[in-house]
Amino acid sequence: MNEFLERYTAYRELIDRRLSNVIDRDEPVTMYEPARYVLSGGGKRIRPVLVMLACQAAGGDPMDAVDAGVAVEILHNFTLVHDDIMDRADTRRGRETVHRKWDENIAILVGDELMGIAYKTLLNTERGDVRALTRVFTEGVIEVCEGQSYDKEFEALPSVTEEQYLMMIGKKTGWLVAISAEMGAIIAGADAAQTAALVEYGRCVGRAFQVQDDLLDVVADKKTFGKPIGGDIIEGKKTFLLVHALSGATGEDLDLLHAVATHTAPAVELVERVTAVYEKLGVLEDARKKIQKDTSAALQALERLDDNQGRRMLAWFAEMLLERQY
Amino acid sequence: MNEFLERYTAYRELIDRRLSNVIDRDEPVTMYEPARYVLSGGGKRIRPVLVMLACQAAGGDPMDAVDAGVAVEILHNFTLVHDDIMDRADTRRGRETVHRKWDENIAILVGDELMGIAYKTLLNTERGDVRALTRVFTEGVIEVCEGQSYDKEFEALPSVTEEQYLMMIGKKTGWLVAISAEMGAIIAGADAAQTAALVEYGRCVGRAFQVQDDLLDVVADKKTFGKPIGGDIIEGKKTFLLVHALSGATGEDLDLLHAVATHTAPAVELVERVTAVYEKLGVLEDARKKIQKDTSAALQALERLDDNQGRRMLAWFAEMLLERQY
Repeated sequence: MNEFLERYTAYRELIDRRLSNVIDRDEPVTMYEPARYVLSGGGKRIRPVLVMLACQAAGGDPMDAVDAGVAVEILHNFTLVHDDIMDRADTRRGRETVHRKWDENIAILVGDELMGIAYKTLLNTERGDVRALTRVFTEGVIEVCEGQSYDKEFEALPSVTEEQYLMMIGKKTGWLVAISAEMGAIIAGADAAQTAALVEYGRCVGRAFQVQDDLLDVVADKKTFGKPIGGDIIEGKKTFLLVHALSGATGEDLDLLHAVATHTAPAVELVERVTAVYEKLGVLEDARKKIQKDTSAALQALERLDDNQGRRMLAWFAEMLLERQY
Repeated sequence: MNEFLERYTAYRELIDRRLSNVIDRDEPVTMYEPARYVLSGGGKRIRPVLVMLACQAAGGDPMDAVDAGVAVEILHNFTLVHDDIMDRADTRRGRETVHRKWDENIAILVGDELMGIAYKTLLNTERGDVRALTRVFTEGVIEVCEGQSYDKEFEALPSVTEEQYLMMIGKKTGWLVAISAEMGAIIAGADAAQTAALVEYGRCVGRAFQVQDDLLDVVADKKTFGKPIGGDIIEGKKTFLLVHALSGATGEDLDLLHAVATHTAPAVELVERVTAVYEKLGVLEDARKKIQKDTSAALQALERLDDNQGRRMLAWFAEMLLERQY
């Protein structure tokens, strides 16, 4: 295991431990049992690790950023619980969703409660300007809700532009990644130039991460992916791939993609047929280029920081996310 | 109009104006249209006025407490939007609920967003310890969610004790009233003794307010109440009245009350029959006594503060709530 991966793993395990201890009450049972379930569901812990690394890259102690990192991860998990209700999703990371395992009322309440627990954890942060930190976090709550709202609005539209897609996904997914970097900077007491570089890094990584997610839905290995291949196609989700393909397709291909986007495509061999169209139009390659471009931009933003272990970790982190297969 | 009522009205109108301007975006439309709808729904604005008056009573400027007051009111409204989904309520303050007027997904998201807007507004508060203020607010989020969780758990139980009822309602309703007073104290920079007195006042007023709510469900005038008389009885809600009556009833009366509590009572003339049992057992009188006792305790807590206009307003406020008919 290389030195970077070793450190990432250690940070991730630290976050997991903190997440498993963050709830200090048992009752009401219908609240805290599902809340614990959510927080023990695993995940790559990208956002909290980013908070820690950004803090380190800006000259701070990554340990000062653990509470804020855990808070962002809880916030992220709250959005998943509520999104799963809205998307009628049955599973998440290979486990039953909260509204399936318990019920919808419980899932609504547990999500709400997790937001409270997220703020409570955030407020344990002792370094940095607590008002600025809480403001950035709160803007994250607002943007991520707006992103989900646009996502649901777009589901009802026959098509959206690439610009609309990038705006929506920037709020829904990119924002929390970007503020993770910004929060690390605030905790480290970074100056304006350092903060701007870290925010830029976070924004690029967040975008690359999402397009990668869209790409993996089609090209991932079924075993390691943890969810069915082509799920986005079946749901007619307006991913980077679909939006991009719609703007380049003609004839029968365009008809098929329109049918996917409006949920009227025939189910038979749908994933295979759409994937073939994607390949023919070169949108998989376009997605790979987009990811590489954003990753390069992220690495360039890091150049504006002084070299230290945190900065090197962030560079490695961006490349690792680029290469991930799940 | 007396001087106190005049000032309360002015504060309430100020809060209403601020609530109507707190949302500064229009898109996504499916987010901000219902959010504005919620915040323009009126109400007694008890919590924000309490934040302002508590600040004033502790020697601060009530205008410094407006943002925090607006934040508590938004938080309160967020809980109503989500509670209405869980309770399958069709109307709220005489208007359609969000999940009825739009849909459930929108109501979930709008509630989430309102919590973000509440924190954003809170963080505009310039006086007092912002960390302490945000912590108290966050504990409010957590407690109010726990209260709702217990409330739903209790719905499924055949009976609950008066102690359980008071614990639940203390979280679900009392807590936000209590922290309103505490937040005012923090903004004013109150000392520990002042803060304790104001928290005690808030706790007592919150409890009296809730029992009054339970009482009004049965004795209110249909015209001014704004919702059907006896709604709690029909829903089998474990109110102060029902819990208290269950502990004193025997024979047929007990059978009827059990049937109400387990949602198995025959619908015919249910409200009239249960109200008659309440009267016979004296629980309406017990409720009135309980309200008076809590109101007296609230007034006593105020005696520990120096006399000023804020303190006199708080005393008037507690008595006004005691006499309210809706």
